[in-house]
Amino acid sequence: MYKIAPLQNGLENIDGFYFGGLNSGFKKVGNDLGFIRADEPFAISAIFTSNKFAAAPIAHFRRILEKNGGEFRTNFILINSKNANAMTGEAGIGDIDEIFSEISKFTPLVNPVMSSTGVIGYRLKKEKIIAAAKNFDLMARDSEAIATAIMTTDTLKKEFAYEVSLDSGEKFHIAGICKGAGMINPALATMLCYILTDAKIPHSDMGELLSEAVEDSFNRVSVDGDTSTNDTVMLATSARASYDKEAFRAALKKLTLDLALMLVRDGEGANKLVKFRVFGAKNDNEAKKAAKALSNSPLVKTAIYGEDPNWGRIASTIGACGIECDAEKLVIKYDDALVYDSAHRELDEERERLAHEVMQKAEFEISCDLGLGAGEFSAYGCDLSYEYVKINADYRS
Amino acid sequence: MYKIAPLQNGLENIDGFYFGGLNSGFKKVGNDLGFIRADEPFAISAIFTSNKFAAAPIAHFRRILEKNGGEFRTNFILINSKNANAMTGEAGIGDIDEIFSEISKFTPLVNPVMSSTGVIGYRLKKEKIIAAAKNFDLMARDSEAIATAIMTTDTLKKEFAYEVSLDSGEKFHIAGICKGAGMINPALATMLCYILTDAKIPHSDMGELLSEAVEDSFNRVSVDGDTSTNDTVMLATSARASYDKEAFRAALKKLTLDLALMLVRDGEGANKLVKFRVFGAKNDNEAKKAAKALSNSPLVKTAIYGEDPNWGRIASTIGACGIECDAEKLVIKYDDALVYDSAHRELDEERERLAHEVMQKAEFEISCDLGLGAGEFSAYGCDLSYEYVKINADYRS
Repeated sequence: MYKIAPLQNGLENIDGFYFGGLNSGFKKVGNDLGFIRADEPFAISAIFTSNKFAAAPIAHFRRILEKNGGEFRTNFILINSKNANAMTGEAGIGDIDEIFSEISKFTPLVNPVMSSTGVIGYRLKKEKIIAAAKNFDLMARDSEAIATAIMTTDTLKKEFAYEVSLDSGEKFHIAGICKGAGMINPALATMLCYILTDAKIPHSDMGELLSEAVEDSFNRVSVDGDTSTNDTVMLATSARASYDKEAFRAALKKLTLDLALMLVRDGEGANKLVKFRVFGAKNDNEAKKAAKALSNSPLVKTAIYGEDPNWGRIASTIGACGIECDAEKLVIKYDDALVYDSAHRELDEERERLAHEVMQKAEFEISCDLGLGAGEFSAYGCDLSYEYVKINADYRS
Repeated sequence: MYKIAPLQNGLENIDGFYFGGLNSGFKKVGNDLGFIRADEPFAISAIFTSNKFAAAPIAHFRRILEKNGGEFRTNFILINSKNANAMTGEAGIGDIDEIFSEISKFTPLVNPVMSSTGVIGYRLKKEKIIAAAKNFDLMARDSEAIATAIMTTDTLKKEFAYEVSLDSGEKFHIAGICKGAGMINPALATMLCYILTDAKIPHSDMGELLSEAVEDSFNRVSVDGDTSTNDTVMLATSARASYDKEAFRAALKKLTLDLALMLVRDGEGANKLVKFRVFGAKNDNEAKKAAKALSNSPLVKTAIYGEDPNWGRIASTIGACGIECDAEKLVIKYDDALVYDSAHRELDEERERLAHEVMQKAEFEISCDLGLGAGEFSAYGCDLSYEYVKINADYRS
């Protein structure tokens, strides 16, 4: 067995890495350029967006992967915000090579990789990035500086760290930072996430465990159902501590779910974090369809914003999502408050009061028991508010 | 050949039907209960929601259909707003029978049918509806009275009529009313539509032509991607005039598209009607996926609201919708203004100005040429505004 204990100060718990950030002039206030590096090249595994128009830094990463036959080590990750370097074609990839060629003049680089987030369709201002990179304190270990450098419309820094103690008395550490507030959807969306560990995890386990953890975390959250061109989750290890597969799997799942839920809590204009738990479905896939439809429905999301226990929108969304369902067997609850079953259709005053009480909380669960089988799935979403519209109506200004 | 000419006064152009409406006490102001009837039973064809939790009036209609082996005549359609009679189970169907049993005491009924729109999950207030129905002027021919009775969050009455002149000199007429502003999506959503004609259309043609027309109109529009429990399109004929299949097909398509576009123009909080035209796709199905994804994307819709020519969101949505696409071949235009092709990526000042000019219009087209094949599809959508959120955050109050 193993024990997982939370730690303060994010990435600073992981020996063997350096990381920091600074303002390079793209944001008016705050960091907008960051790095993660090590003296020795480290193993890295990554999962990217399913968007067909994957951005230039992703194409750049994939080329290195190809050249190295699926596994490679890097010693430098560069991350910028305010410009996504997406839809910039071959020139966008060339820009990355040029930036690294300049940076290599003052620090040795091995397979350096980049991530970008921000507006689509504009070339990077290379000179500004290169000039700023010269000011990096390459010996920094400042988790706050890098965690804030990757933020765009985020209002909260997203950073978690754990110490994992094995029965043998040995320990390892895992920590992660991420960003993302809009364009967030079950299939990874404008989110960047960097996870560092000192566990001696074999390269072959990295991809497997990362995919599994992402499926159970980032792929279950939705802010607005959109999927960006730049989503990236990277896992890197300094391989200085022990490793246990089950303990690592558990810690990685916990870390990614913590980060994913923080994305929703900090969703653009979001005030509520809602878990949509669907069970009793014919199978897991049908439960997934329903849970994701609920977390993406504008009518459900606005009712949550208005704290209106209008369960008809929940039922209607389930009925519309193309799965097997039966109104006579359906049971809908907000936390423990029953809002619908076939014996209780109209909300009486008492049930309305209880449901409304639940909806006033910042975090609650909407559960739907379809009463048909053993299929289940949970998705996480938020409300749709005036602020979401405001933020997205003039994103570029 | 044939000629189609618009007419004023909606349903009043169709001989052989009576229709009207009144306030039965559910709306504070305006009509909320209406009817369409005839002295002789008339042929009727209907298309309903794909929502699995279809409302009681739809289940009621389907039972009559079943009993009559697929075709039947009715002489009375009753329509109420403010209550959807959905998720009310067997009792909700019983309520309809009871209402008609009372109405039959003062006017003879043959297979009467009902439609409802409004809040989900509450039983109809039968007594109020029955009492009000006694006050119907059953000889009225008042298109405005019935068109307003079916409105919920609609701000505009939706009513069109045409006279169709055949080469032979013979004529027929077709007219329709509909309602719907929210919960509107490609698969028919909280919309009710009633189309009357005097054309002697055979029952077998009614279903075929109605399906085809609905597919090309109501199923191409989206306000918010939700699909309701109550959607209904009905076509009824008094069979008093001539009929020509091609002319009728054309007039019906024109009428349904006019009504469907009016739904979007009057979408909850909508300020813009946008045609999303996708062509050059691998096939029609892929074009349809892209056009519908664009019309449903909150990020695209908020950018339209903000009149922000942020074409990156268009590209990102296409890239994310799961179809074949290539950033080097893609061309995006707002009306005639080019916003993206691989030779013009960043918007320069002049192209930004032209695109912004287009977006200031109340109606415009966003076209995407994928450059891959002959597939094409057009969908219609609107912007996502503060008002949409406001309307839906407290729908029931």
